[in-house]
Amino acid sequence: MDMEVGQVLHMNGGVGETSYANNSLVQQKVITMTKPITEDAITKLYCSSYPVAIAIADLGCSSGPNTLFVVSELIKAVDSLRRKMSRKSPEYQVFLNDLPGNDFNTIFRSLSVFQNKLSKQLGPDSGPCFFTGVPGSFYGRLFKKNSLHFVHSSYSLQWLSQVPKGLENNKGNIYMASTSPPDVLKAYYEQFQKDFSLFLKCRSEELVDGGRMVLTVLGRRNDDPSSKEGCYIWELLATALNDMVLEGTIEKEKLNSFNIPQYTPSPVEVKYEVSKEGSFSIDRLKVTEVNWNAYQNETDLSDAFKDGGYNVAKCMRAVAEPLIVSHFGEAIVDQVFQRYREIIADRMSKERTEFINVIVSLIKA
Amino acid sequence: MDMEVGQVLHMNGGVGETSYANNSLVQQKVITMTKPITEDAITKLYCSSYPVAIAIADLGCSSGPNTLFVVSELIKAVDSLRRKMSRKSPEYQVFLNDLPGNDFNTIFRSLSVFQNKLSKQLGPDSGPCFFTGVPGSFYGRLFKKNSLHFVHSSYSLQWLSQVPKGLENNKGNIYMASTSPPDVLKAYYEQFQKDFSLFLKCRSEELVDGGRMVLTVLGRRNDDPSSKEGCYIWELLATALNDMVLEGTIEKEKLNSFNIPQYTPSPVEVKYEVSKEGSFSIDRLKVTEVNWNAYQNETDLSDAFKDGGYNVAKCMRAVAEPLIVSHFGEAIVDQVFQRYREIIADRMSKERTEFINVIVSLIKA
Repeated sequence: MDMEVGQVLHMNGGVGETSYANNSLVQQKVITMTKPITEDAITKLYCSSYPVAIAIADLGCSSGPNTLFVVSELIKAVDSLRRKMSRKSPEYQVFLNDLPGNDFNTIFRSLSVFQNKLSKQLGPDSGPCFFTGVPGSFYGRLFKKNSLHFVHSSYSLQWLSQVPKGLENNKGNIYMASTSPPDVLKAYYEQFQKDFSLFLKCRSEELVDGGRMVLTVLGRRNDDPSSKEGCYIWELLATALNDMVLEGTIEKEKLNSFNIPQYTPSPVEVKYEVSKEGSFSIDRLKVTEVNWNAYQNETDLSDAFKDGGYNVAKCMRAVAEPLIVSHFGEAIVDQVFQRYREIIADRMSKERTEFINVIVSLIKA
Repeated sequence: MDMEVGQVLHMNGGVGETSYANNSLVQQKVITMTKPITEDAITKLYCSSYPVAIAIADLGCSSGPNTLFVVSELIKAVDSLRRKMSRKSPEYQVFLNDLPGNDFNTIFRSLSVFQNKLSKQLGPDSGPCFFTGVPGSFYGRLFKKNSLHFVHSSYSLQWLSQVPKGLENNKGNIYMASTSPPDVLKAYYEQFQKDFSLFLKCRSEELVDGGRMVLTVLGRRNDDPSSKEGCYIWELLATALNDMVLEGTIEKEKLNSFNIPQYTPSPVEVKYEVSKEGSFSIDRLKVTEVNWNAYQNETDLSDAFKDGGYNVAKCMRAVAEPLIVSHFGEAIVDQVFQRYREIIADRMSKERTEFINVIVSLIKA
């Protein structure tokens, strides 16, 4: 596996930086959207075996305001259940995972305040919560066998372990696109299949029997992998880069060799991999959408926040900048994102622009 | 517990910085010295139950060249045993603990190279090693119940959770000293007793039955807690600070309120606390010494390394600087350590100067 690509992808977990991966308002909305499914899963998990210690892993935790949010919601859900049932609180073991380039120091230094707040919310008779950081790619084993009860991952699994091999014919594009030849689409899909099934295999070894996962992946509804739903946001970035090729700011060959290591699967593709790998059964599968501009329906926003192009480009910059910089160098990056912002703003004013989320709740069979 | 003190203490885990706590040559020598005891303990642990997964915690791991060294030696020892016995390799779960101010990012970013090297050394049929970072004070629970097999801690447990209360009469001193009144010695000892017994209680909850700990603490042989063995290195720093009071660079009152949150216990005191707390039995207890200047017997050293005063002051600066800065401010710190270096060099040329290490190997009863 090409760790370098993954490393670059997750280097955006900087302090205070909005990140598409985990810390944007988009992601926060998605987490809220997913909450009923997550709570349903943790409830079923807890009530099926009443474990005295619950080990929860968040895979692709990033470093920012959303990092500890999901986990605290899960713990609160269990605590509320065990109170209703007058049971003794379990101990909670929380594993926060991301690539080694993630800013774990910032997470760790915020833990003390977070834990004090959480233990006040839970009350004095609640079990202790132990937090650990786990650096490494989730496309490989991260935890010992049969040691996890619950796995959560949000907006991380659309990232592939590497740029697929065999994208030479994807000229002018930077991701799957309507003009991508079939062998490019095939290469992307096969990389997704390989990665996702490896992910399932590793997690099945690490989860206890009856253990559960809730995965939210940036995806698409449409069967066509090159449909606009999953690809449009990258097509617009490609437009910005192609404009710069025409102006001579970027070399054509440089652009031709640049491709985003992502795959936005359909629910059918997710279902198919789960069934093929065989370790998990699907409890729930849901597709939702969230507007590119997560601020769209907010009131009382400053003018800066009302600028949808700005918001979306900022979001995307947090994700794409490390990839752009590592491929094209530092010099062009401001210009790229200025152009991208204008293109996005134009499109958003003319059409409905949404991210599609595929949410799947799984049980280890 | 005053986390602030602890935070400051461990903020010295900076990249490439020599640290008294874990990354100095002194510490490296102590680890080597302790190796027979550590290996004996892990051997007995492995052969008593042949666990399929071994969970090892290093408490006070710091961030530097020694951080992963002990753990890799432990894993190699188990691997060599299981090969001799033709047993399948266990999985290894490694918990690296230090205060949240420690530089975990640097550890995590070095793990990939370290793990590749280790897995080459171990060979292809060895079990996977999973590394996690655990931020928090070891004077409190850090891990879930019955989840650890082996605990290692080197040169960390001499740090108290806070400066003892009631040191108002320790004027002119910054640690226990021959001129410290009895109530000061009592306050230091009681803080040690409280902290060490809490440490034992927490670890006993976290270790499995038959689990083991090897603890190396900076200590003393002598029964007198104010004897030179444990205190001299701090008395010389007090001399430097007192000189600066006389010259008017430091306010007298400021110095009087400065005390080091450390306790250098005797083997008898360690034994007593272990027996009083009751969860552990002592397998081995050993006292060793290491020269202040760990470079002393090395040949082929550059002139810089031959300067014992420089070496020891540098070592001590890594530990003491955060404490000095947080109490006296940044401005005086260079002058303090310049003076300290001269005083140390003078003493080392005239007398034998050694750190005393108390090493204890414990079994959960």
